[in-house]
Amino acid sequence: MLNNPLMPVAEALAQICENLPPLPSEPCNVTEARGRYLAEDVVAGLSHPAAHISAMDGYAIAASSGLDAGTVYSVIGEAAAGAPFAGDLGPAEAIRIFTGAYLCTGADTILIQEEIETRPDGQISITQTARAEQFVRPQGLDFSTGNRLLPAGKCLTARDIALAALAGCSTLMVRKRPHIGILSSGDELVSPGERPQTGQLINSNSLFLHQLVTLSGGIAIDLGIIRDTPGALITAVKAAGPLDLLVTTGGASVGDHDHIVSDIMAADGGQIDFWKIAMRPGKPLIFGKIGNTPLLGLPGNPVSAGVCGLVFLQPALRSMLSASLTLAQPSATLATPLPENDRRQDYLRACFITQDDGSLAVTPASQQDSSMLQTFTHADCLIIRPPHAPAAPDGTIVPILPFPAGI
Amino acid sequence: MLNNPLMPVAEALAQICENLPPLPSEPCNVTEARGRYLAEDVVAGLSHPAAHISAMDGYAIAASSGLDAGTVYSVIGEAAAGAPFAGDLGPAEAIRIFTGAYLCTGADTILIQEEIETRPDGQISITQTARAEQFVRPQGLDFSTGNRLLPAGKCLTARDIALAALAGCSTLMVRKRPHIGILSSGDELVSPGERPQTGQLINSNSLFLHQLVTLSGGIAIDLGIIRDTPGALITAVKAAGPLDLLVTTGGASVGDHDHIVSDIMAADGGQIDFWKIAMRPGKPLIFGKIGNTPLLGLPGNPVSAGVCGLVFLQPALRSMLSASLTLAQPSATLATPLPENDRRQDYLRACFITQDDGSLAVTPASQQDSSMLQTFTHADCLIIRPPHAPAAPDGTIVPILPFPAGI
Repeated sequence: MLNNPLMPVAEALAQICENLPPLPSEPCNVTEARGRYLAEDVVAGLSHPAAHISAMDGYAIAASSGLDAGTVYSVIGEAAAGAPFAGDLGPAEAIRIFTGAYLCTGADTILIQEEIETRPDGQISITQTARAEQFVRPQGLDFSTGNRLLPAGKCLTARDIALAALAGCSTLMVRKRPHIGILSSGDELVSPGERPQTGQLINSNSLFLHQLVTLSGGIAIDLGIIRDTPGALITAVKAAGPLDLLVTTGGASVGDHDHIVSDIMAADGGQIDFWKIAMRPGKPLIFGKIGNTPLLGLPGNPVSAGVCGLVFLQPALRSMLSASLTLAQPSATLATPLPENDRRQDYLRACFITQDDGSLAVTPASQQDSSMLQTFTHADCLIIRPPHAPAAPDGTIVPILPFPAGI
Repeated sequence: MLNNPLMPVAEALAQICENLPPLPSEPCNVTEARGRYLAEDVVAGLSHPAAHISAMDGYAIAASSGLDAGTVYSVIGEAAAGAPFAGDLGPAEAIRIFTGAYLCTGADTILIQEEIETRPDGQISITQTARAEQFVRPQGLDFSTGNRLLPAGKCLTARDIALAALAGCSTLMVRKRPHIGILSSGDELVSPGERPQTGQLINSNSLFLHQLVTLSGGIAIDLGIIRDTPGALITAVKAAGPLDLLVTTGGASVGDHDHIVSDIMAADGGQIDFWKIAMRPGKPLIFGKIGNTPLLGLPGNPVSAGVCGLVFLQPALRSMLSASLTLAQPSATLATPLPENDRRQDYLRACFITQDDGSLAVTPASQQDSSMLQTFTHADCLIIRPPHAPAAPDGTIVPILPFPAGI
């Protein structure tokens, strides 16, 4: 299985997602559901408005009793939001009504203060001709019982859960959150907060991937750092609780100090599906399984781990969450030329710049070394250069991978 | 102060932000800092790489010992990531080196496996001419001690905290999170999960605003629902803990059942700065103070509360967080004509549509009633129509307010 030709990104991604089917669903209180993925459509449990309601403070009348200036009404009661008027409206009768109140039986039109005058006997008189059914919000104007409001597969926003709550849906069926273990590998690594000694490096990968998992709808479980020791991965997997996916960084090559591949092959139920991808950064990439735990092995350089997280881990999470929308494939205009590409798909860190004509164009960072985290952090997007792409003069439209919000 | 002319949105917003200055800063562990706002620049506490390191597995040599095919080196030791070689390199000496390992004193070039052959005596011989300093990542390639990595005022992303962690910044100075109380007002309201009786309405506003506050960097404190009773607001404010801002929805007009304005005026230290804004939806809007607690009173209709939350509450939070970046003012092309506007600034719910030529255009929903939450939820953006804007034919470029991620 070693020394296979490089695998295209799309093929690798398809294999990963195929092996990570949607998780089961579970109920979730609507108030807690923002960021969760709907497992079923949300259908309105009631109508909004639930009845014809007044859109203004004023007087509710029947238009059939007259709308012309000079028409006189007797005010027989009052209706406020939450306090409907219980009776019916007879001819030439009105009720004082406030915004949001139900119209009583017989009423179909609201007169506002500017359209009436109050007479000394307490009756009201129309001062300017009114329009039938004015200032009324009809029952179901927003939605009616049984309307499909939100589709399965949607990631719920603040607006979505407000709408679902308003529609009486207090519990939503959502996908279980994938439990993603995150494990970094390397003798040189220390955790953030520790002071690195000579030869040591602070492990930023787990921190980045933790946030990527959380913001993508998963639950990140930090499994710490393992050393470059045969068997360390197997021990760590045994110690971890049940996981939907284990993500490792580092140790993914086949050098004397890289043990991820050999550990997987040595483990009970160990299986490697592939491990060399036609991409840059990120050539050494593992997808496999230890026992029942799928494993995605990312390279250890911070930028390689970050890019592979965006390119493989994020879609893997979307697969497990049965996300309905494929992410858009946006593009941008090159501000500087790019040479022709070799057999690996490039993900170039790039920034947007405003050009002389005011349009937005994209410029790759001049250095793309995969250890340079600062250019990754300051990038606005990644330019995707397919394998063997021809030289691209400035002005070429190129596909880009934007960074998701918060990433 | 009542019956003032309508106040322009920008003027209202400036007054709100002026009264909500940046909160103090506090230290935050870098691992917990995603979504927080930097109160100080982040400056690298160390260099990355900390020394010249190898970018590949191979052999470290001094270029001065020869790079031509046939040059022979004695392998005198080994260096791996986290395990540097302690000695110096003499003439014609090499060390076996692995990716990420420090180069030892004297070494400046890496020979990779493909460029050498190992002789029976264990020495290595160059098989193809190498380049001086190849496959070396020089000290500080990414950043050096003292470099400014992130500016004060930035909202920290996953990439930002990974970079700060890698740079040895284990604690970051960030703005305290604003504590925002959320209070809904209305006799008709019940909370999500309760079954509304005749005349009642489920309160979706608190839910939406809770998420808006959280996603904008604040801490939302749900203070429940108060009834349309004089004094209810004063009682609720007294019962609440210290708040940086109290946000109310509903009761913001001056009808018989609206008590927010009168309660503020009746309260000790009560003060109203304005309460009628030239906008739609959202005309009745209050900014004031009860004692030491600033108060932002939003209208009660779900769409009005939502739009005013985006237009006023979100910038108010950014003011308290001293956010550095003003949000971009994007624009879009109208797919359908719009009539001329009156004296109120409109925020029209609208969806993006792909036109025949492939370009993206924006179409407002046909009905814009402020009770219609579904069109708000399904909108891609709000079209901003300034007061007295002239009629706009299709093809006109119009300013838009996009919905932030997760909102």
